[in-house]
Amino acid sequence: MALERGAGPLGIQIQDQLRAAIRDRRLGAEERLPSTRRLAELLGVSRGTVVDVYQQLLAEGYIEAAAGSGTRVAAIPSGLPARQPPDIVAASASASASASSTGPAEADFGYGIPDLGSVPLTDWSRAVSEATRTLPTAELGDEDPAGSRHLRKVVTAYHRRVRSGCAVAEDAVIVSGFRQGLAFALATLARHGIQRIALEDPGPREHDVIARRAGLDAVPVPVDDHGLDVGRLHQSGARAVLLTPAHQCPTGVALGPSRRRDLVAWANEVDGVIIEDDYDAEFRYDRQPVGSLQGLDPARVIALGSVSKTLAPAIRLGWVLAPPRFVAGIVEEKRLSCRGAPGLDQEALALLMESGRFDRHLRRVREIYRARRDVLAAEAEAAFGPGRLHGLAAGCHALLRLPDGASERAVVATAATLGVRVNGLGHYRFAAADAEAEPDPRPPALVLGFGNVSEHQIRRGIRALATAVQHQSRPLRNDNPTPTH
Amino acid sequence: MALERGAGPLGIQIQDQLRAAIRDRRLGAEERLPSTRRLAELLGVSRGTVVDVYQQLLAEGYIEAAAGSGTRVAAIPSGLPARQPPDIVAASASASASASSTGPAEADFGYGIPDLGSVPLTDWSRAVSEATRTLPTAELGDEDPAGSRHLRKVVTAYHRRVRSGCAVAEDAVIVSGFRQGLAFALATLARHGIQRIALEDPGPREHDVIARRAGLDAVPVPVDDHGLDVGRLHQSGARAVLLTPAHQCPTGVALGPSRRRDLVAWANEVDGVIIEDDYDAEFRYDRQPVGSLQGLDPARVIALGSVSKTLAPAIRLGWVLAPPRFVAGIVEEKRLSCRGAPGLDQEALALLMESGRFDRHLRRVREIYRARRDVLAAEAEAAFGPGRLHGLAAGCHALLRLPDGASERAVVATAATLGVRVNGLGHYRFAAADAEAEPDPRPPALVLGFGNVSEHQIRRGIRALATAVQHQSRPLRNDNPTPTH
Repeated sequence: MALERGAGPLGIQIQDQLRAAIRDRRLGAEERLPSTRRLAELLGVSRGTVVDVYQQLLAEGYIEAAAGSGTRVAAIPSGLPARQPPDIVAASASASASASSTGPAEADFGYGIPDLGSVPLTDWSRAVSEATRTLPTAELGDEDPAGSRHLRKVVTAYHRRVRSGCAVAEDAVIVSGFRQGLAFALATLARHGIQRIALEDPGPREHDVIARRAGLDAVPVPVDDHGLDVGRLHQSGARAVLLTPAHQCPTGVALGPSRRRDLVAWANEVDGVIIEDDYDAEFRYDRQPVGSLQGLDPARVIALGSVSKTLAPAIRLGWVLAPPRFVAGIVEEKRLSCRGAPGLDQEALALLMESGRFDRHLRRVREIYRARRDVLAAEAEAAFGPGRLHGLAAGCHALLRLPDGASERAVVATAATLGVRVNGLGHYRFAAADAEAEPDPRPPALVLGFGNVSEHQIRRGIRALATAVQHQSRPLRNDNPTPTH
Repeated sequence: MALERGAGPLGIQIQDQLRAAIRDRRLGAEERLPSTRRLAELLGVSRGTVVDVYQQLLAEGYIEAAAGSGTRVAAIPSGLPARQPPDIVAASASASASASSTGPAEADFGYGIPDLGSVPLTDWSRAVSEATRTLPTAELGDEDPAGSRHLRKVVTAYHRRVRSGCAVAEDAVIVSGFRQGLAFALATLARHGIQRIALEDPGPREHDVIARRAGLDAVPVPVDDHGLDVGRLHQSGARAVLLTPAHQCPTGVALGPSRRRDLVAWANEVDGVIIEDDYDAEFRYDRQPVGSLQGLDPARVIALGSVSKTLAPAIRLGWVLAPPRFVAGIVEEKRLSCRGAPGLDQEALALLMESGRFDRHLRRVREIYRARRDVLAAEAEAAFGPGRLHGLAAGCHALLRLPDGASERAVVATAATLGVRVNGLGHYRFAAADAEAEPDPRPPALVLGFGNVSEHQIRRGIRALATAVQHQSRPLRNDNPTPTH
């Protein structure tokens, strides 16, 4: 046993080394330990130190003392292999560092990431600091299960002002983001007797898995140039639907005015519920954003929002705005599954939104996105000809239509070899392998997220995509290459 | 329609008022709206402003325009009553303010709240500020599903150093607190084929509900003066157990050394899993805290920890340290249910723990709790005689044994009328109304949390409890008063 002066109290060092030796079976069960007097002499420490060590290991069950037979290593039963030593930490940390040193893609058109270089970190840090000074002490304890009352007032006022909603603080439940809000809402609908939910096809990924975890049967409903096909929704037998009306993910279309009314009529006819993913709604370039569906029928719409795209995913705050009959159920889901979001962060977000700094940030990034969108449109037209880019009126992604007969998979794979990360439209099809899904009637296309791609990267990325398309239009050696990411 | 100069753009005011009128049915379906020219004249605004308003409401589905018939209010179907106007916000906010103005209890011995006046808010605010400067930009996006790698390294190093654990970063999943970690762990065990979990009786509240939500059958196992009765655990047929070994909730006993080994033997015999609620472990007054069970059998123990009791519930960060075979399942639960905890807060906590300010805070509050504990012990002895207070070796709560024959419920109710909030031991019985639970063999007792009660409040509170006990020992007019909280 090697003791180091200056490496912490000697007693702790002895304890740690004995524990490790017993765990690693270097000291076997029943093995007799030296007397405290003898070990103290061996290690050159006081006997009291060793007595304390033995008492500690005795209390923790590593050793046992029987009258007349001294102190022995206890038999710690385990049918499983001994643990690797903590050295693994250092080894795996360096492994992970070398893995990431392969460098980022030249352009990553991945979906749904905002401009991470523009996150208002100073504003956020100031808001947290202000929250630590202004939050009442009692609110540092377990929160109101529905979330900070202050934030619920602020986000519903924001939703009324910016999204033309009509929810009030009592309708709001604060969550850690869109996905948690969705899980709570779906579980609550299941408890209210709803059995089947319709999902947009193509649509956001994994919502079918999340719906099934909540106990709901998930069915696809097609999206056309006016958004979700409400006629097909009628035929689906679903009593709930989840959709992205402001800027459909991934096609980029906005739900048309008559579709909005038809959707509300459907919900009232089947006693159903519309879950509105109010995604990308803040970023509309040609006009004022279309208001939230929640404002059109507050008794039938559950609106989900978050700051993951307006501020950053790393802030992790969102909200559910629900008709009164669902609020208690959503709060109960939250209370039993996690107790909710950090109280200090909730207060910080409320202060940030009240101060006007949140709006100022949105105005600033909207101009960044508008400029990126313009570059994307110009580059796409130069590389692929006019009329190829769709869904550019709002949000941070667009759809690039490929030449007829092009293979999305081949283009995606070739692009990857050129350092460009992108997904095909087929990536967003509902359970592509599922028999229920129809063959995709849409021409091949790529989904181009441009939230976190610089103008320079957009230019390089689009040129690389043009190269990838040219290459795949001639027969490739390997007809079905597997995407490498 | 009343327009106010200075109350925002006129077009927005007109939109908002038209939307509200259509929602409230003041403008009925099919009702014809004035032409844009006419409305512009009426309101004294430019015609372009009204054209924009109509286009917006058209896009949102509130109005429709048919060739030859002008613009009409759309038929928005709803079988549910119209919404209350947003005035409800102001009204309900003032109602809630007056409800809370009834004032706090004179002493609140509620369980599980740390000293909210000691939360190191300045340290936290500085750590968040540092995190905004040091976190790599890429980590502002969606996090590694297991959580911040930095924090996983820091909390496992902490757990090895302070709790004698032996987990490494790869074993850790960051969560929003104990309850979320428990839900993920239980769901993962259910997917691994475990069907029944044993819970301490008496034990923390609602864990039976949470276990059943995860699909597990929950059964009670009694706690005696050495902690969980492992013999009874053997008989329970459970293959998992959840317990509080460092300082049992609510009895305050620590799990004895031979029980710790018996527990590990049980887990290996039944191919089972021990979930360790490493609660209150940091606060031991008489000696070094007993190490985490995780260190004794890392292949069988899932350890759950959080900073809710060491820092504050409003920080909402915790961790699951799991055997390697469960880590992927826990991460998947997390990814599908919420995507996890805020990245900035995770970095802030890692920095706080690395800086030594977390340890310094623990040393400071440990002295505060020790002083409160000493006052509690002295006051309890003065009021109730010696040997009545148990479970004081660690943590922030103790058990006050009442005179034989006293009614917990009567004392709790009488105490409430004297401004003292407290719970009886029976409050922590497993499903008290359940036929499976045995009649409580324990004498009547109160659970006294002293984490968030000042010394002054402890003195007043204990005297009030003595009064309550005296009053209930004489027959009360109402034999079964209902607690008012």
